[in-house]
Amino acid sequence: MAIKITGSGCYIPPQIVTNTDFARHQFLNEDGSTYAVPNEVIAEKFKDITGIEERRYVEDNLTTSDIAFFAGEKAIEDSKIDPETLDYIIVAHNFGDVKHGAIQSDTVPSIAARVKHKLRIKNPKCVGYDVMFGCPGWIEGMIQAQAFIKAGMAKKCLVIGAETLSRVVDVHDRDSMIYSDGAGATVLELTDGEGGFLAHETASFTYEESKFLFFGKSYNVDHNPDVRYLKMYGRKIYEFALTNVPLAMKACLENSGIPISDLKKILIHQANEKMDEAIVQRFYKLYKQTAPENVMPMNIKKLGNSSVATIPTLYDLILKGKIENQELHEGDVILFASVGAGMNINAFVYRC
Amino acid sequence: MAIKITGSGCYIPPQIVTNTDFARHQFLNEDGSTYAVPNEVIAEKFKDITGIEERRYVEDNLTTSDIAFFAGEKAIEDSKIDPETLDYIIVAHNFGDVKHGAIQSDTVPSIAARVKHKLRIKNPKCVGYDVMFGCPGWIEGMIQAQAFIKAGMAKKCLVIGAETLSRVVDVHDRDSMIYSDGAGATVLELTDGEGGFLAHETASFTYEESKFLFFGKSYNVDHNPDVRYLKMYGRKIYEFALTNVPLAMKACLENSGIPISDLKKILIHQANEKMDEAIVQRFYKLYKQTAPENVMPMNIKKLGNSSVATIPTLYDLILKGKIENQELHEGDVILFASVGAGMNINAFVYRC
Repeated sequence: MAIKITGSGCYIPPQIVTNTDFARHQFLNEDGSTYAVPNEVIAEKFKDITGIEERRYVEDNLTTSDIAFFAGEKAIEDSKIDPETLDYIIVAHNFGDVKHGAIQSDTVPSIAARVKHKLRIKNPKCVGYDVMFGCPGWIEGMIQAQAFIKAGMAKKCLVIGAETLSRVVDVHDRDSMIYSDGAGATVLELTDGEGGFLAHETASFTYEESKFLFFGKSYNVDHNPDVRYLKMYGRKIYEFALTNVPLAMKACLENSGIPISDLKKILIHQANEKMDEAIVQRFYKLYKQTAPENVMPMNIKKLGNSSVATIPTLYDLILKGKIENQELHEGDVILFASVGAGMNINAFVYRC
Repeated sequence: MAIKITGSGCYIPPQIVTNTDFARHQFLNEDGSTYAVPNEVIAEKFKDITGIEERRYVEDNLTTSDIAFFAGEKAIEDSKIDPETLDYIIVAHNFGDVKHGAIQSDTVPSIAARVKHKLRIKNPKCVGYDVMFGCPGWIEGMIQAQAFIKAGMAKKCLVIGAETLSRVVDVHDRDSMIYSDGAGATVLELTDGEGGFLAHETASFTYEESKFLFFGKSYNVDHNPDVRYLKMYGRKIYEFALTNVPLAMKACLENSGIPISDLKKILIHQANEKMDEAIVQRFYKLYKQTAPENVMPMNIKKLGNSSVATIPTLYDLILKGKIENQELHEGDVILFASVGAGMNINAFVYRC
């Protein structure tokens, strides 16, 4: 018996926003003062650090629940299960549905209830709920799903990560260039096979770190301070992640009993290319090794940071042969890992 | 071994709002037209149906995470556990932190992360996350906590339901009189005792019902339609609840193996007095019985409907001897049940 991913899907919004598209933005410092450098220089430096050249924004008429549904529907099709047999629909997000041009989050009913409605699932025993856990929400949803399966409460769970960060950005904040929209989904099932979900690790660092990512006012001091946007202390997050994520990854791998030599891929939250590379280097350094080439598939260059959606999207694209030089085969061991608002860190070890 | 509630706490905001306090409100129909009847008549009819005479609003300087913390802190004290030994902090809510005078929900970081920060818990292995499941969120959090305990992932969980509905009401909607603020919390633990959490039942009805409770524009047509408030189709909810809640309660009790004659108390979401009474009557009718006197403690009269907070608040007040003619003793069997946005229904059977 194994708890395995039997299907995946994602939704990549068609609207491409390049770094050049930010040329007309008036970027400001936190205190409202202007930058001495032109936007082209800011964009170049931004690309060097984050690796991001483009990001995707949803169409104006869509919200998080729409794209969560698109990804979920594809994952169900991919798994070939009857949707009426799902025990859970778990949707990870952090802002709910935010309409284009509006500032309110809409979370009643839950995004999971909306997705289930759109999927036309009738079975009331298919339970839909939302989980809020920062960017690591999709991994946490997977951990919760496997807990329900282990506790005998479920056999088939649809876990979705969906976010529309384009709806909560401060256009005067350079960090707005990081954020992207997207949705990814997986079906997790109790199967007769081998391998599957082997171990997990979760940690919440809130003593000093709870406001490293927060909802704050615009850097434009003329804006209404009661209208708030996604904000971050990038430097603090970078240092926090480099210290703590490799340790959590190691604890998780050790719990699984898998030697590091058997680890084929690391699928890490697409937060920032340089940060992700440094995390993986530090992780291998804990084993006195250097990271093998190609161990960490990335798609941040073209898709940006879509919060909860990055990992299931990356997983789906690899399986569908859409990430160059990256493949997954039966028996391969993957380490999934994420870090984000909370600050939360989590990981799980999975054998394909 | 048993999974038992070892502590409880609640926060009842000090600001009392009586039905008379709505006298100056201009109540409107859904289409913006005015009522032919004066507010006193509306208030009297409202009281007859819902049983609500008063409700509580939080102080202007507080938000959901503040009152979630107050209730959580009391539950921890009551349980006498070391907060650093908590494995999970699960916070059920539906709107996050909404500041007084603002319209945005703030959910980054999660409410659980904020509560853990305020509790000054350092242990990163204490995982905090938020669950959104409509009014039945606290029960769903309890069901998830017992799943983690059963799966061997946790031994001690703090489950909080907290909401400030006063921040999302349309003052032109009569239904605004239902809504209240509050927070309730419990510590659920793996113990050496007997009884505890015996069985649960959860159902999500989304095929026709997903918009019975929703976020919609003001009944005042002059208001900005992009500013939205909690709205409900009361009649539809009433009929839905009367049909489906008693069946879920019966399924849950049957799963527990407890005969109905052993059931001592029913703690049901304080949504509407007449509806709750009708649900319990129908539940007993399924067993060809009438409801025993005093089986259903109520506090809606003075506290209104505070969403996820009503049940843990009611439980805590009974245990602390603050509900007249209501007591709980060791060995007593309680059926907890709720219904709300989704539409979601859930229940669990618990032996004290």
